[in-house]
Amino acid sequence: MGMLTKWSLLTCVLLGSLQLHAEDLTQWVDPFIGTGGDGHTFPGAVVPFGMVQLSPDTDNPMRGVSPQSEIYKRCAGYHYDDSTIVGFSHTHFSGTGHSDLGDLLIMPMTGTPHTEPGTATDPDSGYRSRFSHDDEEASPGYYRVKLTDYQIDAELTTTARTGMHRYSFPETHQGHVLIDLTHGIYNFANKVIWSDVRVVDDSTLITSRRSNGWAHERPMYFAIRFSRPFDDIELINEDNARYRCMGCLDKKDGKHSTIVNSRIPFTAGKAVKVLARFDNPHQAPLLVKVGISAVDKSNALDNLTSELPHWDFDKVRSDANAAWQTELERMEAKGDQSQKRQFYTAFYHALQAPSLYQDVNGEYLGVDGEIHKADFPHYSLFSLWDTYRALHPLLTLVSPERVPDMINSMLAHYDQSYDRILPIWSFQGHETWTMIGYHAVSVISDAWQKGIRGFDGERALDAMTATANHPNYDAIPEYLKYGYVPMDVLPESVSITLEYAYDDFAIARMAQSMGETDIAKAFDKRAQSWRNVFDPETKFARGRDSKGHWDKDFDVEEAKYMGPFTEGNSFQYSFYVPHDVAGLIDIKGGDGAFIERLDELFTRPLHADKIKEHEDIAGLIGQYAHGNEPSHHIAYLYNHAGAPWMTQARIRQIMDTLSNDTPSGLAGNDDVGQMSAWYLFSAMGFYPVTPGDMTYVIGAPQLPEVTLNLSNGKHFKVIAKGLSKDKLYIASVSLNGKPLNRSYLHHDDIMAGGELVFEMAATPNKAWGMAIDTRPKAMSPYKN
Amino acid sequence: MGMLTKWSLLTCVLLGSLQLHAEDLTQWVDPFIGTGGDGHTFPGAVVPFGMVQLSPDTDNPMRGVSPQSEIYKRCAGYHYDDSTIVGFSHTHFSGTGHSDLGDLLIMPMTGTPHTEPGTATDPDSGYRSRFSHDDEEASPGYYRVKLTDYQIDAELTTTARTGMHRYSFPETHQGHVLIDLTHGIYNFANKVIWSDVRVVDDSTLITSRRSNGWAHERPMYFAIRFSRPFDDIELINEDNARYRCMGCLDKKDGKHSTIVNSRIPFTAGKAVKVLARFDNPHQAPLLVKVGISAVDKSNALDNLTSELPHWDFDKVRSDANAAWQTELERMEAKGDQSQKRQFYTAFYHALQAPSLYQDVNGEYLGVDGEIHKADFPHYSLFSLWDTYRALHPLLTLVSPERVPDMINSMLAHYDQSYDRILPIWSFQGHETWTMIGYHAVSVISDAWQKGIRGFDGERALDAMTATANHPNYDAIPEYLKYGYVPMDVLPESVSITLEYAYDDFAIARMAQSMGETDIAKAFDKRAQSWRNVFDPETKFARGRDSKGHWDKDFDVEEAKYMGPFTEGNSFQYSFYVPHDVAGLIDIKGGDGAFIERLDELFTRPLHADKIKEHEDIAGLIGQYAHGNEPSHHIAYLYNHAGAPWMTQARIRQIMDTLSNDTPSGLAGNDDVGQMSAWYLFSAMGFYPVTPGDMTYVIGAPQLPEVTLNLSNGKHFKVIAKGLSKDKLYIASVSLNGKPLNRSYLHHDDIMAGGELVFEMAATPNKAWGMAIDTRPKAMSPYKN
Repeated sequence: MGMLTKWSLLTCVLLGSLQLHAEDLTQWVDPFIGTGGDGHTFPGAVVPFGMVQLSPDTDNPMRGVSPQSEIYKRCAGYHYDDSTIVGFSHTHFSGTGHSDLGDLLIMPMTGTPHTEPGTATDPDSGYRSRFSHDDEEASPGYYRVKLTDYQIDAELTTTARTGMHRYSFPETHQGHVLIDLTHGIYNFANKVIWSDVRVVDDSTLITSRRSNGWAHERPMYFAIRFSRPFDDIELINEDNARYRCMGCLDKKDGKHSTIVNSRIPFTAGKAVKVLARFDNPHQAPLLVKVGISAVDKSNALDNLTSELPHWDFDKVRSDANAAWQTELERMEAKGDQSQKRQFYTAFYHALQAPSLYQDVNGEYLGVDGEIHKADFPHYSLFSLWDTYRALHPLLTLVSPERVPDMINSMLAHYDQSYDRILPIWSFQGHETWTMIGYHAVSVISDAWQKGIRGFDGERALDAMTATANHPNYDAIPEYLKYGYVPMDVLPESVSITLEYAYDDFAIARMAQSMGETDIAKAFDKRAQSWRNVFDPETKFARGRDSKGHWDKDFDVEEAKYMGPFTEGNSFQYSFYVPHDVAGLIDIKGGDGAFIERLDELFTRPLHADKIKEHEDIAGLIGQYAHGNEPSHHIAYLYNHAGAPWMTQARIRQIMDTLSNDTPSGLAGNDDVGQMSAWYLFSAMGFYPVTPGDMTYVIGAPQLPEVTLNLSNGKHFKVIAKGLSKDKLYIASVSLNGKPLNRSYLHHDDIMAGGELVFEMAATPNKAWGMAIDTRPKAMSPYKN
Repeated sequence: MGMLTKWSLLTCVLLGSLQLHAEDLTQWVDPFIGTGGDGHTFPGAVVPFGMVQLSPDTDNPMRGVSPQSEIYKRCAGYHYDDSTIVGFSHTHFSGTGHSDLGDLLIMPMTGTPHTEPGTATDPDSGYRSRFSHDDEEASPGYYRVKLTDYQIDAELTTTARTGMHRYSFPETHQGHVLIDLTHGIYNFANKVIWSDVRVVDDSTLITSRRSNGWAHERPMYFAIRFSRPFDDIELINEDNARYRCMGCLDKKDGKHSTIVNSRIPFTAGKAVKVLARFDNPHQAPLLVKVGISAVDKSNALDNLTSELPHWDFDKVRSDANAAWQTELERMEAKGDQSQKRQFYTAFYHALQAPSLYQDVNGEYLGVDGEIHKADFPHYSLFSLWDTYRALHPLLTLVSPERVPDMINSMLAHYDQSYDRILPIWSFQGHETWTMIGYHAVSVISDAWQKGIRGFDGERALDAMTATANHPNYDAIPEYLKYGYVPMDVLPESVSITLEYAYDDFAIARMAQSMGETDIAKAFDKRAQSWRNVFDPETKFARGRDSKGHWDKDFDVEEAKYMGPFTEGNSFQYSFYVPHDVAGLIDIKGGDGAFIERLDELFTRPLHADKIKEHEDIAGLIGQYAHGNEPSHHIAYLYNHAGAPWMTQARIRQIMDTLSNDTPSGLAGNDDVGQMSAWYLFSAMGFYPVTPGDMTYVIGAPQLPEVTLNLSNGKHFKVIAKGLSKDKLYIASVSLNGKPLNRSYLHHDDIMAGGELVFEMAATPNKAWGMAIDTRPKAMSPYKN
């Protein structure tokens, strides 16, 4: 069965498995949320987990020219503060803090055609156009904007592997469409390694580009079709003298020589653009459709003709919308408009990655740089340091059908990697080695223990242990040698030690569930390595050198770049022992002291000077940084010390102060859905503090009712009775009518379906969840 | 059946079909012939039609820095005048006038390792080494040189897809082997588009490179294995700051950051080198073996392990030698040492291209930039403007087993070409559009009419007519519109018109033989277009503008770059009507006038000023330029005017003055075997003046005896009785004992086997071949 078929079938299964709902849930999605501030989401068109993200780019600041802050703002190409659009490109990350992509920029225009973007301060100097948010709209699978300089109405929609543009021109004799192969996100000199373009017929182009960026050498191929023949086409090779004709000894006039036939409508080089002219473009909307492939040109064309054989823009748009509706129906939320807008937009952002990275014929570019074929949908874009925390656990509930193939894609990565290692932070056939840990193991262990099958457990465990014992990867050799990573050998040593220890716990759990007792024991022992970086004197995680001496310059607040902590400080990371919170509380001096430290985290001001080296540390409440992942689980840890009412208060505080439904409503990078997954879990009232331990720690529901429509046909309804601005505390909880005294849920509680009813109150019930045996279980196996 | 198997089988068939011969023919091959002057051959190791040409490069002058003459000298990487070697690279053209390749330079050294080549004037400034021809040797499939600066004995040998190096070091503590991925032939800034290298294990590397050159974007992958583990290895990325870590925000010390894991032994960029250290390298010779692929890295490794699973250098060498011996036995020549050296070296040079371009698994890179798989050996490197003349006709006699797959490769090119056109001058997945005409049609027509099958005639004819009617290629639109190419529209207009006309004749003959009468008639009519550029007043081919006016600045001698003639002047091109010599003689004023013009061609001095714009016009006898293709058939045209004795005299004159067995023994570029094929035919005593008309025009044998051992098991022996320095004329000819009065052979005469006996004399027999009905047949179908 071809990929197209299987992919379609999956959609059909999803469609068929759900009852019909009257409510259009896509109305609550506002793709602009997160496009302001540093949310780094994009407003353009995409289908769930789609390969194409067709979206406007508002600028492409150049590294080494523009300030870093200007570049950072535009990781997704678009920033809500901007007032001009340079064009529409076909690939975008959602919410990342580092970036790349922005492939194949297309821009329509009237008047004298420009071939340079011009500047934001002088938009008339180039092809960019002013625009206004008043004449701009976006919904799942659709984006529209009026390009005011040209009075062109530009609309975008997508299928999984194609993008479609509809340009409605004003009355004019001539319009132009520029394709700029030099455009890219995270732009810099020499970003384009190579590109080419070929005119196939009077309305078809085939282009390709290899670019250097976060991925060192990333190829992408495009098949481009216009709905009407162009009246003229110009292939612009700005490096012509240097690149096109290195083979021409003395090419004159571009007409003819013995070395090159300039009549063939093809050019190649590092600065290639295409300018297509359309006479009387207002007579009918001009449509452009684009198929993309990372494999080759014929696959790009094949993707285009397979997924988009027609010119019915409105059908593509409604199909995309229907695909989103189907996905969103997995969760039915009640609440006020702002809550529903935040909830469904978060859900929308959580269903974009890992994204499809495969052509309709099953082929994809592997991390070995070679073309492979898979008989399952192949995914890329694993931002695992972020997403192992809550996004992947969320997908086990709302999109479990896709989880096995996400894992199969990670195992294919492992097989194809020359380094024989699971993905760290990989996208589009490239391992970026970004961030720390080997958190793929958490994703796999969590899914396996939850009973998700469709991948080979033995093979997965082999890959997990091989990754954890990798002889070259990052700090593993030192971690194995010293039991921790010495700060005099490698930076980020404490964070790495802590995260490896958690990952080892995840491996142990998977091994245990498979009856691999020896492996489980070995990794449970390794999981205790976190203790080796906890200074008993200060009771904080602290840098330690290879001789065992503690960091003399220790500053609990300082988040130094290349210091002992990763995008964080000791205060934050000292709460990062998700798999042994009991042990951590013990080291911290017991429940009381632990709660004091948590309170201090949320109240002690963090001076900007301490975090100036990290743009990612954002969304602060005291030392707590909601804008970055190391803090995400911390508010839930009060539960482990018997004070769940404090978790309830903190969750409400975070929700009220660090999240809203405006473009700047995200407190930091969405990080490919992790921030959104935090929101969704926390709004429902529970959170996976320890992925792989089969529990969710109860926080405080923020919506009056949320129903999870599970893939097993069951429904898990969460009701927050009496919830209001004041009634933020849990008075009591019942599960299927029976009192629930423990402050956590088992995964099975959810999968069995039923009703989880919270009675909310304005004053805390300090007795609920206080008893030891009602607290979350995560404990030290070597302590007890 | 896999490619390896089929390729091996082909070799076996060749081996099996021939009787055993006592004489080692490879002893007569001197790979240094042509490495001096402007022969542009290389002295290194290659197997017949092999994909790898492993050969020393003596310099890599840089365009824009070094004079063009210095670059032109080193089209094959090596020049006999040079006294230093920069290293050994794995791909080379043989005899071309334009160039590229030189992939993967490897250089061993002792002492302080260098990573830059240094200069020829100061060899100690870099890794290059002095060498002496006294301590250098080459034979088919083998090359050896003493690198005097290092006292390293370096030996090279190859299989079809692999190269093997053997370095014998002097006693020393440390030796180094440098791999320089920046090296290339026809070097220039930015030639390397991208490259990478990965250390796979302690003795294995995988590298790749995409380069820009004559081919705009040409990928090549290499698997490299050392016979012993290196003691240290350094990956050098000279563009590190600019390329390797574009993703690293502030990477410090190269040790670690959140963005890149520097422990993975991999680097990528535009200036990548590898330095491997070997302690005590003298203890045993160090072997390096390299597999190449244009498809991907795993294919490179697969090619290496499939073709070269062992470390027996001597076996590889003897296998390569045996493969050459098998090929060379197709022609058995007698003669003095110099004659045999010239003859077998020419034969050796004629059996190198079109060369294999396909991995053992059948995959290859198509001209569409995509990976294809063929179940036949796939060939690349079609220098057709050169080789259609005599090389391809020669292959129909000495290597007919390979001809169908060469044609199938051209048809695959046609199918895969976006432009739907047969190859013009293509190599390694790239069409260079170099030179003029569409001479693939000649190769196919010639082979088809000779009864060579194994390709689809209908499909071929379709491709031929589509090519000849191509709407974009070069001057075809004007040719079809005006009946000639107007000089005010395109340069090289006269040469193009003449060559298209011949190609049209070739198409007509193929169509005729297939019973496609309409096509034959149409192309026979087109074939008369040559008349439209012959000025009846001057009786010379002459530029003509779109209004029909003749070139006012006409100069019969001037070879102006971008003038009306291609690497030639009117004097030469006015003899280029190979398919209608009778018509040409008529226009020239009849036999007497024609012979006068021929004599004038060979006697009227050509001033250097007239050809200063063309480095290719070399090997002069008067206006005749033996060093370039437009002249190659001309000496034979006396036959058509009834004066074969003058052909006999000219052939001897050319042989005596423009060919010898020294490194500078070729009068110009060997042009991938075309010059050599001229030599071989001419030495035997006949030449294919009109490929596609099934005849060979008799010249004058230059060797006392040559036997063609034909693939049909028959033998065609050519005996020149009484041949000597003085006895250069033909007194009489007999074929199988019967007098042969006609001055040409039918292809069938040869294929039937038998003896062609020339009686040679010191004085011409002016009666032989003078009668009209004994002259070569090529005539105008529309005249008679």
